[in-house]
Formats: sequence, structure tokens, C-alpha cells
Amino acid sequence: MTSESMTLGTATQLDVFEDLRRRVDTRLEGVLDEAEAEAARRAKDAVETVVQVRDLTLRGGKRMRPAMLLAAVECVVEWKTLAAAVVDTSCGIELLQTYLLIHDDWMDGDTVRRGGATVHVSLAKRYGDEHLGASAAILAGDFASAMAQDLALSHNVPKGRVFDVARAFIAMQREVVLGQTLDVLNSSDIEAIHDLKTGSYTVRGPIALGHALAGGSAEQWAALVAFANPLGVAFQLRDDLIGAFGDEKETGKSAASDLRQAKMSAPVRWALERLPEDRKSELRAVLGTDQYVRAQELLIESGAVEGIERRIDELEAKALAALESPALRREGARLLARLAAMMCKRKK
Amino acid sequence: MTSESMTLGTATQLDVFEDLRRRVDTRLEGVLDEAEAEAARRAKDAVETVVQVRDLTLRGGKRMRPAMLLAAVECVVEWKTLAAAVVDTSCGIELLQTYLLIHDDWMDGDTVRRGGATVHVSLAKRYGDEHLGASAAILAGDFASAMAQDLALSHNVPKGRVFDVARAFIAMQREVVLGQTLDVLNSSDIEAIHDLKTGSYTVRGPIALGHALAGGSAEQWAALVAFANPLGVAFQLRDDLIGAFGDEKETGKSAASDLRQAKMSAPVRWALERLPEDRKSELRAVLGTDQYVRAQELLIESGAVEGIERRIDELEAKALAALESPALRREGARLLARLAAMMCKRKK
Repeated sequence: MTSESMTLGTATQLDVFEDLRRRVDTRLEGVLDEAEAEAARRAKDAVETVVQVRDLTLRGGKRMRPAMLLAAVECVVEWKTLAAAVVDTSCGIELLQTYLLIHDDWMDGDTVRRGGATVHVSLAKRYGDEHLGASAAILAGDFASAMAQDLALSHNVPKGRVFDVARAFIAMQREVVLGQTLDVLNSSDIEAIHDLKTGSYTVRGPIALGHALAGGSAEQWAALVAFANPLGVAFQLRDDLIGAFGDEKETGKSAASDLRQAKMSAPVRWALERLPEDRKSELRAVLGTDQYVRAQELLIESGAVEGIERRIDELEAKALAALESPALRREGARLLARLAAMMCKRKK
Repeated sequence: MTSESMTLGTATQLDVFEDLRRRVDTRLEGVLDEAEAEAARRAKDAVETVVQVRDLTLRGGKRMRPAMLLAAVECVVEWKTLAAAVVDTSCGIELLQTYLLIHDDWMDGDTVRRGGATVHVSLAKRYGDEHLGASAAILAGDFASAMAQDLALSHNVPKGRVFDVARAFIAMQREVVLGQTLDVLNSSDIEAIHDLKTGSYTVRGPIALGHALAGGSAEQWAALVAFANPLGVAFQLRDDLIGAFGDEKETGKSAASDLRQAKMSAPVRWALERLPEDRKSELRAVLGTDQYVRAQELLIESGAVEGIERRIDELEAKALAALESPALRREGARLLARLAAMMCKRKK
């Protein structure tokens, strides 16, 4: 499971993040329309692939990674001086997310994403063949990956910073793919999964992109990374709680999907370390089955929920402390603090 | 099927292409060793994925796309003045090829590649599970894609040209993915497949990268693209003949794989347009079965082989004519002419 959504503010409040969200959505619509038109002209039979990328991207979440990128830029310079580049590189992150979600959902056999059918499910239905649908879905992901690079390194990025932005964008990909590999193989190296998968491309990656785009200093980077790393772990822990206890209506994903897939997520690991032997065996037996309600009871009994909530609070405090650095502009630090609070308290 | 190999010269001749091939292989070994070490340190359970990328890349062919890139650079400036960048961007193309081959082979269900097991087959065997093997293979491709970007846009590329090199590298990806989508869906739009899939990333893409790397002019680009486009079609036609008549020992791929997969390749299409009705029905019946020898006989009977050989000769002549442009350095034009001859006459 790759998680992605959260609440960035209330509907009545048109602030900087809401402004960014609108700009990103408008730009995504524009480039996806162009891509669809190009496919219609040059590869008519492949249009449906692009349509799937378009639909999944545009029914996307709250554009939280763009908010993180913008806040990092704001720690270095006023983001409005780089607005077009901030929007384009943000679109690059969102398209990267589309690519990863499409591949991920097929690997995990997930059928629901962002409140609609996953791409491999849609395409298998359309072509009446499961393997063909999966193949076209993998290619839809590959196409989104190419589009992501196109936007992340667009003509709006200051020419002297393209190299640094590319480095950040590529490092994020290398890390998240290794992290996802560990996840798919159900590795017990949970910390590596947290760091590489979620930490990397949810927090550290967007912040690294913002820092590169704004031409930040080494001192600014040190402060930003000291913020990003604990927050990335906190985000993943929250995600694991949602993956164990969230319901489909709220998350747009299958309920308790991590439990039904027997993922070695943080609460499961917590419980397996602390429950008495008989309960431990029971938990092992119900993981990966439809008896996820019993698995949830056992997790609660083990104290996993309070324990992990406490750990999230500690990590958030650590992240906020890093923002005290005098190297960072206060305007940016305030935005990052707000995002940290939202990420640690979200319900989906 | 994605094809890739050809002969670039005899073993006794250590010329510019052989020199490049050795430099590219050495550099690929270095970066793949580093990637493996990084995975061992940060994502131990994912090492096998990187090992698979390493093995497939290093048992790679004749490095024909790098040769094409180098020749295009040489049309603009002496390639040795940009040697490190030529090598790195060449490695980027080779890793892109690894990425595309891994995904492609899984989609096509191919079991043999470059004389070894395909990545999804190896990994399915290793993990004892077909879906897990396929998932890890898709991720191996995704990892190769990130590495490809890393090399194509390496620190050796002149900073002022990173943006242009990125454009060429991304355009190639967008095109080849659309082309592969048409191919997988067995689209009847053969010309679009030729142009987008093979033309794009076998000839036009490497040449565009070389042109961007060397900082070539618009006039030079016009001459290079007039060379690349007919050659790309000729390459694909040769590929289709090999896909229908090649044997596994020579090509490192399953014999007559296109016929067994009932691909609407150029010779099949030729035959279906020209054979009498009864033969046409017979051909349709044997395509996609093990009776590929009968399919081959029917193709020969239709005149497909001579007809397509003739067309390849015409396209080669057209490509060579474009090299007469005074905008191109003679040293480079000579190298491109040599590559065109090799590509049009290859047996694998």
C-alpha cells in the first residue's frame, strides 16, 4: 500500500496551500489533456492508457507533497518568485505518485484507489483479459513516469538548477523503488521500508526538490533534513495505523487492507513483540484472512495504538525542534510546522 | 519483443565503437556495483533486484545505441572532447533498455533474453511464486529506469546542456512507452509502432541525445533527423524479419517468437495482404501456435522476404542521402553511414 492523502485545511480557508492545489490541478489538467491529444494523434489505440493516467491523477488527493515542496522553497526564498517552477515540479511529484500507485496497486492486488477502480482492474475489464489489463497498467505507470520527469525538469525550472532538481528527483525514485521492493517481499526490515519508501518520497524527497529549486545552502539543507527524517517516520506510523484501522469510505482504499494482506506493519509488529504466546498465535492465524476485526481487537489489546500514538508525538516534537534553525526563513518554517501537525494527526 | 543486438565490427578491430563499448561496459559495471552495495547497506532484502538489473545489463549486446549517440556527437564536435559525458549518457540509454526489456519480457511472456532467463522467470523461481516474481521484476525495471536517468543526466554532462539532454531522454521514453502499448495491444497501426517504438529509441533517440550533448544547431538536427527516421523504419523491418525467421542460438531470444505470439509484424501483414484467400486463412490459423515453420513457408511464398529486403535497401539509401548535408562533420557522417549499413544487414 502506498498512502497519500490527508487534509490540508478546511474548505472555507483559501490559503497558500489551497492556492497551490488549484494551480497544480489546473496545470495537471493541461498537460494531461495535451498528452491525451498527442496519443490520439500518434498512437490512437493507446489513448485509453493515457486516459487512465489522467483520471487517477486528477481524482488525486490533497496535493500534500506539493505543499511540502512549496514550504521548503519558502524556507529559502519567497515561493512566488519561483511560482511556475514550484507548480511544475509539484506536478512532477504528483505524476510520480500516479506511476508508483499504478504499479503498486497491481502488485498488491488492490481494487480500489482514490474512490475508484484501480487502473489494472479498469483495463482488465476493458480488454476482457487480466494479463493484458495488467500489462497496459504497467505501461500506464511507465508513461506517467516519463511525464513526471518532463514536469519536474520543465522549462520553468531555472536553467542553472536543473541538474540539482534532477538529482533530488532521481534519488527519490531510487529510494522509493528499493523501499517498495522490501515492502512487496514482506521484508522484516521495517525501518528500512519506512525510511526508503515513505520517508523518502513523502517528506524528504519533496523537501529536497524544494531546496534544490530554491538554490538553498548546505546549512538550510541540514535543518530541513533534520525536520524531514523524523516526520517521515511519523507519517509512516500514522499510515500503518490507518492501514490497520481505516475504513474504505474514509480512505478511498480497501478497509484494513494491511491486515488482510498480512503486512508486517508497525502495529502488527508491536503486537507480535508484546502479546502473550497464545494471542500471538491467534494474531498470526487471522492475518491475511477476512477476520480483520479480530486482528484489530488483538492489536488494541497489545497496546499498539497508544504506543504508536506516543511515538508519533515524540517524532513530531523532534521535527518541530529542527525548524528552530536560524538558517530557515520563518515564513517557511511556519508552513512546515503546519504540515507536520496535519500529517501526524490525519485520519486518511 | 524489443530487439537490440547487432554486430558492430569484428573482434580483431579495436576501433572507435569497440573503444566506446569497453568504456561503457566498465562504467556500467562500476555504477551497478555501487548500486548493489547501496542496496546491501540500505535494503538488504532487495539486493536480488539490483543483481538482476546488473546481470541483464552486463550480459548486454553490442552497445549499438551508444555507437549511434557517439556518431551524432561526432557530427557536431570531436567526441573525445566530451568523452565522459558520452560514456555516461550511453550508460543511461543502456539502462533504459534494461528497464524496457524487463517490463516487455514479462508482458510478452518471454523466457529467454540475451542468452539467459528473463528477469521475471528468474525471480519467480527464486521466490517460488509467479506473482511475486513478476512484481519484483517490474520493480527491477523501475529501478533500472531511475538509474538510467541518473546516468543520462550525470555530473559529466555540461551543466548548460542538462536541460536539453533531459528533453531528449524524456521524449524518447514517452514515445517508446506509447509504441510498446500499441504493440502489446496488438494494434494494427504498424507504422505508429515502428515510429514510436523502434524508430524513437533505437535511432532517433540516441541521435537526439548526441545532438543535445554536443550542443548542435537546428540545421544539424534537421540533417540528423532526416537520417534517423528512414533508418528507424529499416531497423524495425529487419527486426521483424528476424522475429519471424531468427533462431534462438543466433538471437538469444526464442525462435520465431513474433509468429508464435501472432504479432502483426511487417512480413505477416505483407502476406495477409497478398496471399490468396485459402493461404491467408491457413496463415491466420497457424499464427500463435507452435506451427511456426508452416507460417514461415507461407510468408516466403507471399514474397514478404524479398519485398521487405527491397524496402530496407530503399530506406537505407534515403538515410545515407541525408548524410550529404554540409552541416555535418564528415567524421561523424562516416560513422553514421557505417552504423546504417550494420543495422540494415544484421542477422540478430
